[in-house]
Amino acid sequence: MGRVTERRKVIRIRDGVVSSRPDTLVAEEPLEIRLNGKPLAITMRTPGDDFALAAGFLVSEGVLGAQSDLRNIVYCAGATADGSNTYNVVDVQTAPEVVVPDITLERNVYTTSSCGLCGKASLDAVRTTARFPIADAPPVRVSPDLLASLPDRLRAAQRVFDRTGGLHAAALFSEEGELLDAREDVGRHNAVDKLVGRALQNGELPLSRAILLVSGRASFELAQKAVMAGMPVLAAVSAPSSLAVDLAAETGLTLVGFLRGSSMNVYAGEDRIALRAAAAQG
Amino acid sequence: MGRVTERRKVIRIRDGVVSSRPDTLVAEEPLEIRLNGKPLAITMRTPGDDFALAAGFLVSEGVLGAQSDLRNIVYCAGATADGSNTYNVVDVQTAPEVVVPDITLERNVYTTSSCGLCGKASLDAVRTTARFPIADAPPVRVSPDLLASLPDRLRAAQRVFDRTGGLHAAALFSEEGELLDAREDVGRHNAVDKLVGRALQNGELPLSRAILLVSGRASFELAQKAVMAGMPVLAAVSAPSSLAVDLAAETGLTLVGFLRGSSMNVYAGEDRIALRAAAAQG
Repeated sequence: MGRVTERRKVIRIRDGVVSSRPDTLVAEEPLEIRLNGKPLAITMRTPGDDFALAAGFLVSEGVLGAQSDLRNIVYCAGATADGSNTYNVVDVQTAPEVVVPDITLERNVYTTSSCGLCGKASLDAVRTTARFPIADAPPVRVSPDLLASLPDRLRAAQRVFDRTGGLHAAALFSEEGELLDAREDVGRHNAVDKLVGRALQNGELPLSRAILLVSGRASFELAQKAVMAGMPVLAAVSAPSSLAVDLAAETGLTLVGFLRGSSMNVYAGEDRIALRAAAAQG
Repeated sequence: MGRVTERRKVIRIRDGVVSSRPDTLVAEEPLEIRLNGKPLAITMRTPGDDFALAAGFLVSEGVLGAQSDLRNIVYCAGATADGSNTYNVVDVQTAPEVVVPDITLERNVYTTSSCGLCGKASLDAVRTTARFPIADAPPVRVSPDLLASLPDRLRAAQRVFDRTGGLHAAALFSEEGELLDAREDVGRHNAVDKLVGRALQNGELPLSRAILLVSGRASFELAQKAVMAGMPVLAAVSAPSSLAVDLAAETGLTLVGFLRGSSMNVYAGEDRIALRAAAAQG
């Protein structure tokens, strides 16, 4: 795509010394996601993997669940007055049997329960929409040592971060710690949507044996995305929110936070962490 | 409010040693913002300062610009089936003369220009909506030394962060480096909206002499919020995106990134930075 980064002039100040030079920045552009021609959402994202981002977004929202739900994804050419393609408008066309919900989807949250809105309603919405109950997934068990090794493997795979410092990263790992896929984006939720969408396109949903690692905090939204894709383990380098922990506890998701060095906190689903082995090493 | 943090049980693993204890997490709950009774947006936020958040969101979206635009803000009591108040639904009632735009506002971006959507359209939307052109503001000039001192002052003012690690922070400083206000939230955009909304409620818009400091990256959305509130300087501890830099350059906003120790990068509006003084110190 060639638009993942862009160059801009920057004035650097280092201990009082001023210099001017070109700098590499992470690219940010709006992406409009249409569903069968109807505008659904706009997200600010780093260009690239746009079809996967759109597909993953629709998995998170409960619209898509399998490769066969997808008929086609296209850029809307000719959307501008002069007929040029901005590559910022994507239309996801679903298979005839897919039920397209007659609701206005808002970014980040389900709005079907907006009357008396509360955290509990958000949890209920995800639980009732989830197609791949995590409890039904094949048993997955990972050791603390394996989890502790993942952040370094993700950093090694991050190509853009070192140049711009402006990207969030998300990665899928196998139970054995093998890096399956990694994505970077200005928005953490976009990086996860790109992973999930690519998996849908490859016919790999549910991701019932995968570990999702995110470079920052674990919000409700990221936990929701893990649950909707059927992932059993979400690990974050930084802190989770209360609602992310509540969602994990209710759905059976294993939620690990503050994954740094050989330390980590397990907030939910500790049955998938091989704690005995860890204790034996202590 | 008492809901800024919540306690949850956590299993800690430190070098193979497993222990269980209560942990303090940052609270995350949905907030529905209604405009004159009509649902407009939902954001996941840390409870507290909800009226300021709603007001600031509407400043960012170009609906509110002065204290007099605001008639009232209330929690929607009785929104639940059992009549209880969840304190998660807020209605902003505007003064009769306020023109409420007949558009669906989407979180994070203007959708009025969705045909042929591109970064340029996003920039144009902010520029044409902005009420307080930054070029018209009184001249503000800050030294690199003053900017370098701000992150430590913000950290000193962050009450919750040290306990949860899960909060973004934003602060307003005077030209002289005095901390005017600081807010923390699971969402960076919410922290900024809370600052701006509080300023609107106090009749302090435009913030034409204020420096906005954010604890993380500078996205398009944060630059938009600075511009809409008439702030001349946005400083970020981490990297800006390409579109944030473009918006700053087009609107006259001074954008500083990677503000760490005595180092920083100036991406736009360098006329407000006292560069000569800095060079002389080198």
